[in-house]
Amino acid sequence: MKIHNYSAGPCILPQEVLKQASEAVLNFNNTGLSLIEMSHRDKKVVDFFDETIALVKKLMKLDDDFEVLFLQGGASLQFIMTPYNLMKEGGKAAYTNTGTWASAAIKEAKKFGEVIEVASSKDKNYNYIPKNYEIPSDVAYFHCTSNNTIFGTQMKSFPKTDAIKVCDMSSDILSRVIDFNQFDLIYAGAQKNMGPAGATMVAVRKSILGKSGRNIPSYLDYQIHIEKDTMFNTPSVFAVYVCLLTLRWLDNLGGIAAIEKINNAKAKLLYDEIDRNPLFRGVTEIEDRSNMNATFVLNDESHKDTFDAMWKAAGISGINGHRSVGGYRASMYNALPLESVQVLVDVMQELEKKA
Amino acid sequence: MKIHNYSAGPCILPQEVLKQASEAVLNFNNTGLSLIEMSHRDKKVVDFFDETIALVKKLMKLDDDFEVLFLQGGASLQFIMTPYNLMKEGGKAAYTNTGTWASAAIKEAKKFGEVIEVASSKDKNYNYIPKNYEIPSDVAYFHCTSNNTIFGTQMKSFPKTDAIKVCDMSSDILSRVIDFNQFDLIYAGAQKNMGPAGATMVAVRKSILGKSGRNIPSYLDYQIHIEKDTMFNTPSVFAVYVCLLTLRWLDNLGGIAAIEKINNAKAKLLYDEIDRNPLFRGVTEIEDRSNMNATFVLNDESHKDTFDAMWKAAGISGINGHRSVGGYRASMYNALPLESVQVLVDVMQELEKKA
Repeated sequence: MKIHNYSAGPCILPQEVLKQASEAVLNFNNTGLSLIEMSHRDKKVVDFFDETIALVKKLMKLDDDFEVLFLQGGASLQFIMTPYNLMKEGGKAAYTNTGTWASAAIKEAKKFGEVIEVASSKDKNYNYIPKNYEIPSDVAYFHCTSNNTIFGTQMKSFPKTDAIKVCDMSSDILSRVIDFNQFDLIYAGAQKNMGPAGATMVAVRKSILGKSGRNIPSYLDYQIHIEKDTMFNTPSVFAVYVCLLTLRWLDNLGGIAAIEKINNAKAKLLYDEIDRNPLFRGVTEIEDRSNMNATFVLNDESHKDTFDAMWKAAGISGINGHRSVGGYRASMYNALPLESVQVLVDVMQELEKKA
Repeated sequence: MKIHNYSAGPCILPQEVLKQASEAVLNFNNTGLSLIEMSHRDKKVVDFFDETIALVKKLMKLDDDFEVLFLQGGASLQFIMTPYNLMKEGGKAAYTNTGTWASAAIKEAKKFGEVIEVASSKDKNYNYIPKNYEIPSDVAYFHCTSNNTIFGTQMKSFPKTDAIKVCDMSSDILSRVIDFNQFDLIYAGAQKNMGPAGATMVAVRKSILGKSGRNIPSYLDYQIHIEKDTMFNTPSVFAVYVCLLTLRWLDNLGGIAAIEKINNAKAKLLYDEIDRNPLFRGVTEIEDRSNMNATFVLNDESHKDTFDAMWKAAGISGINGHRSVGGYRASMYNALPLESVQVLVDVMQELEKKA
């Protein structure tokens, strides 16, 4: 049976990427060697790292001040590297608190200086995106989270500020057209739209670095990774290669503008059904709904067992909501086909007929 | 043509591991899903993490005080986590300086406190292992590097000390019988004997943690990773799975004692030829020779082009020496078969006949 993989991350990747990745583990580009037994200093590996970085810059249309790195440790390590690199001792930074991961980023930044929480949606269990807040002009940087995987909200626009602008885009990177050049530091765990777990993409402006005055440990220093062309130490070779395959797939599809259309169609199909079907309701404010993670609940919990049995029988996996929200979460990352959303919508309509 | 993969790391892995890993990228254990699109919270993933950790403990015969983690960032991040977790503000630690990576570990520790370099072989370009040095009793910990990949030296025994004992075993973990319980913290980048790049194994005694008094950033705090069963954030799922496959292979082979015999035979075969063949000489002190990385040079550089052409023609790859040593380095990690060493020895003997 075909599986409709709604996992919140690590998540579905394009079928052709999985095939190519599997082949590379046996025999990388007819070298007779597995990719995972090749030195990262091998020219063929260095070359595909270069291609990966070039494709990120091309797809995101990044200007020349940006350097692109593939690091390890996920967004959680970026929560630490951000203040280490950008905040002076005794400095302060502005953060929006829009969910579990934004809150985790704030927790880490507080270990380095003062955090000004300029906006929060914690009062309503993070079911909306705060707007019209002030960002003080004297902060080291402003930090926001573009998409909140657990709660299903997404920033549709980003505030204007003269401060250095940092964004955790882990769960919606490469999914919609954004002026990425409005930011100074963008980071994203690869394991949603970019590839498998084990790599973290960082795009950082060279011009903002070297000013925190801190004695930064080497692995945590963006400048060191830049000097070493993202091979300061052994990188996560396989994970970056799968990112390259995924980036090539996206590029061939027509880039971010093309996938945005598909993502909009998927989100419209599902949210329209959530709004139409009297058995369901969405969890978040409508204007802040994430096109990546749709959170919804049954109006009457007595349908739960029937509904759960039905979507499982249809081959759907991974739509149980996070424990802090409950209900359902359908993650519709780039590689999820429209067809899979149709299967879920069909099940929701079937349930309505039965109920 | 069969390739004899002498890469210094990432390096050769067992053929059956490569096949199983490739299959898992297409279809993980007949789930119909690729391993790299599965959530790390999936029970099947959690289960194999548990098995991986149990196998490490079994193969290394670790006592119950030890916790085993699979983190990201390589040994380079452990260079930072070690002092962060074990050294108080204004504290000091003892380090041996036996090579490039030992030296890098010292550089990072100096950002956290005082480093006492209790022994160094830098005076002779790290071609020996210092012995009979004093370790002060008032240090936060003693740090050593068991095997020096670049220079080809290996600690055959470890000093006794009452201090907390830390060892970077990246390049010879699981290759020889050691009383691992003499240590308090052992770490190893997986990409030599344990698996692919992208995972770092850490074995740490719970009883030494929580005493540095530092406000440790979460990702750098061993205690947080322990509390979260090494899933504080999304781990490097694929890399850890390949570690499991490699550990199973080693366990089936008879464990560390069994591979040690094979490694000894490989090292003897090659070093005997280096010592016998008048065209070659070893780079390091004989008693400190690494069984993992054999460094050697031609006595007469005029044979270089002929020798290089001959070993390439024989299917050998990856034996060029590191730029800081020159000559040749034959890395004979666990998965390299004795047959591959015989091919290299045959080429060395062929060269002698020609010369």
